[in-house]
Amino acid sequence: MPLIVDIHTHVYPPAYMEMLRGRKTIPYVHDPADSNEAPRLIILSSDDDPSIPIDQRGRPVDSSYFDINVKLTFMRRHGIHCSVISLANPWLDFLEPSEAQKWAQLINDDIEATCAQVNRAADPKGTLALHEKETLFAFGALPLSAPTPDIVVNEIKRLKSLPHLRGVIMGTSGLGNGLDDSRLDPIWAALEETQSLMFLHPHYGLPDEAFGGTEATNRYGHVLPLALGFPLETTIAVTRMLLAGVFDRFPRLKVLLAHSGGTLPFLAGRIESCIHHERKFVANGGDVVGPQRSVWDVLKTNIYLDAVVYGTAGLNAAMTASGTDRLLFGTDHPFFPPLDGKEGNEWPSVTTNYKAINDAFDTEDASVAAVLGGNAARILDLH
Amino acid sequence: MPLIVDIHTHVYPPAYMEMLRGRKTIPYVHDPADSNEAPRLIILSSDDDPSIPIDQRGRPVDSSYFDINVKLTFMRRHGIHCSVISLANPWLDFLEPSEAQKWAQLINDDIEATCAQVNRAADPKGTLALHEKETLFAFGALPLSAPTPDIVVNEIKRLKSLPHLRGVIMGTSGLGNGLDDSRLDPIWAALEETQSLMFLHPHYGLPDEAFGGTEATNRYGHVLPLALGFPLETTIAVTRMLLAGVFDRFPRLKVLLAHSGGTLPFLAGRIESCIHHERKFVANGGDVVGPQRSVWDVLKTNIYLDAVVYGTAGLNAAMTASGTDRLLFGTDHPFFPPLDGKEGNEWPSVTTNYKAINDAFDTEDASVAAVLGGNAARILDLH
Repeated sequence: MPLIVDIHTHVYPPAYMEMLRGRKTIPYVHDPADSNEAPRLIILSSDDDPSIPIDQRGRPVDSSYFDINVKLTFMRRHGIHCSVISLANPWLDFLEPSEAQKWAQLINDDIEATCAQVNRAADPKGTLALHEKETLFAFGALPLSAPTPDIVVNEIKRLKSLPHLRGVIMGTSGLGNGLDDSRLDPIWAALEETQSLMFLHPHYGLPDEAFGGTEATNRYGHVLPLALGFPLETTIAVTRMLLAGVFDRFPRLKVLLAHSGGTLPFLAGRIESCIHHERKFVANGGDVVGPQRSVWDVLKTNIYLDAVVYGTAGLNAAMTASGTDRLLFGTDHPFFPPLDGKEGNEWPSVTTNYKAINDAFDTEDASVAAVLGGNAARILDLH
Repeated sequence: MPLIVDIHTHVYPPAYMEMLRGRKTIPYVHDPADSNEAPRLIILSSDDDPSIPIDQRGRPVDSSYFDINVKLTFMRRHGIHCSVISLANPWLDFLEPSEAQKWAQLINDDIEATCAQVNRAADPKGTLALHEKETLFAFGALPLSAPTPDIVVNEIKRLKSLPHLRGVIMGTSGLGNGLDDSRLDPIWAALEETQSLMFLHPHYGLPDEAFGGTEATNRYGHVLPLALGFPLETTIAVTRMLLAGVFDRFPRLKVLLAHSGGTLPFLAGRIESCIHHERKFVANGGDVVGPQRSVWDVLKTNIYLDAVVYGTAGLNAAMTASGTDRLLFGTDHPFFPPLDGKEGNEWPSVTTNYKAINDAFDTEDASVAAVLGGNAARILDLH
């Protein structure tokens, strides 16, 4: 049985839930009148629809989101030894500037404490190997709405001192203007200097107009925003970083892209071709300095990809683009639970990804063990 | 030397150019004051910017767009034996309803006449095999803005009687409301009944807000709309067809997706997973009937993919999703010419795709010949 590490698994710590309960605009949590019903989390603008009864709006958030024991049970059921937990979207993006630093420290400390407690219980003497116990590590959340970037920089450095933190999770809005915003440079510099992995994760999706308007978007529930909007948001964000030369200025920046890169591995060649054919970037005569490093170079040097792509087709593109040594198993827990209520069984959303990884390689290929856990342990120094 | 067929190659017949010259809103053609300069084609709303001098707006359209001899020279230079030409975007989508039928017939007849003339000159006695001559076939354009769908149905049937027409090219707007519009059913029925391939091609891209607003979109020239907006538009369009059950109702419909499916091969697993986890679609309790056939089944049964993806990563996903027997070489000519003016050389946009196809397979694998031309000849009955 190889080591299995889940690097894409989310939490809403209890304090975060309480904060969301106090809000009336997205993101917010609503407790249905029937106290047997799980709280509802409303995070997408398409869910915040007054025509939907409030008790049915958004999605149920059960204890799997805020009770770490439920995650440990989930891990056990799926053979996962180690989870690198991260605050789920929308993180702290929406906070008033004056509150951002306080909540970031509080939530990151809370997550660190949870990891420390779980890991101590699993290995009181500190003698067991990673595949012999159940452990947690974490990506921290950043106070991106803070009044000045140095507050973010300080939190990045502070996270480095917390024993179970292994980087940060970040959405695509940055300081409010996307990830090609030059005001982010001190933050990229801090992440590069501390060699903290940045887990880039979608939340905002695409405008409803992309799907034909709000009615067309909602016609199929969450399928269009989640299946297509999320991956494209990630792709757009990292492509804007590329085009703005972020990876030229910070060549040792380490970025883990959610959902196997959104669609970056598939579109990398087209992006590269469009850059080479863009008149704005032509050396003599272009009015803008284009990116200096190729997309393929960045994919093999700066980018890590989770293996949350639900099929061998996507996985083959991811492996070709970044290499099997940069591909990391994940579950997206607690999102995508079975809808039939058979929570006692394995989750199809997880087994689909296990199967894709096994199918993508020849039997006994060492790459399977690397993708399932070996890569994560090496890249994140888990022990 | 294997047979090489280009199934993704566009034309603006002279009559179409004249029509565009008569317009002042997108799409339109403008002739710069300097008559040595090529006409400018303005088709993207982001290009139709009054702050850009009119002589520099949009992109130059040289004779490669409207003079078939230039395309024949391009074919010869790149070893292409046969091109299946199609009207470039935005096709006839923008026409007044009363004019749609007339222009569709005129343009399709014009394209048929060009193919007939070229093919007769290449093989006067009709004795040569496809790889021994230079020939043209075509996808026709449809009068989708016509007052009633039966005008479109009639044109589909009429195209079947033109000797060099092999299907139709279509954008993503359908009758104005996307391709999940049930009013398209008679058109799908006609395409299925005549077994006409439908080449689905992007044009409208994504709203600028998807890229962070108009300023952010334009910051990098056309890179974001072309590299990301176009492929996503295709993916959204075909996913809406899937979700609306078009492939359930028309199981023999044949659809060729531009740019290796946009991102469909990469995202197919995520789409499938999101469908299975969508409460709207749950058998007992869902309020909408979900698609009955799996995305993977449709990819291997109804979908064909061009090999215009500029890298092995995308190609590997496309092959895994649809199979090498459904993958077809293309160039996207005359778009993406070399910017250095070395038109006498091979185009990097073409050689990149040749290289990707060769790199994706073991040496001497018969799949290379299949993708380069064998598949197209079989699927489109070219001879």
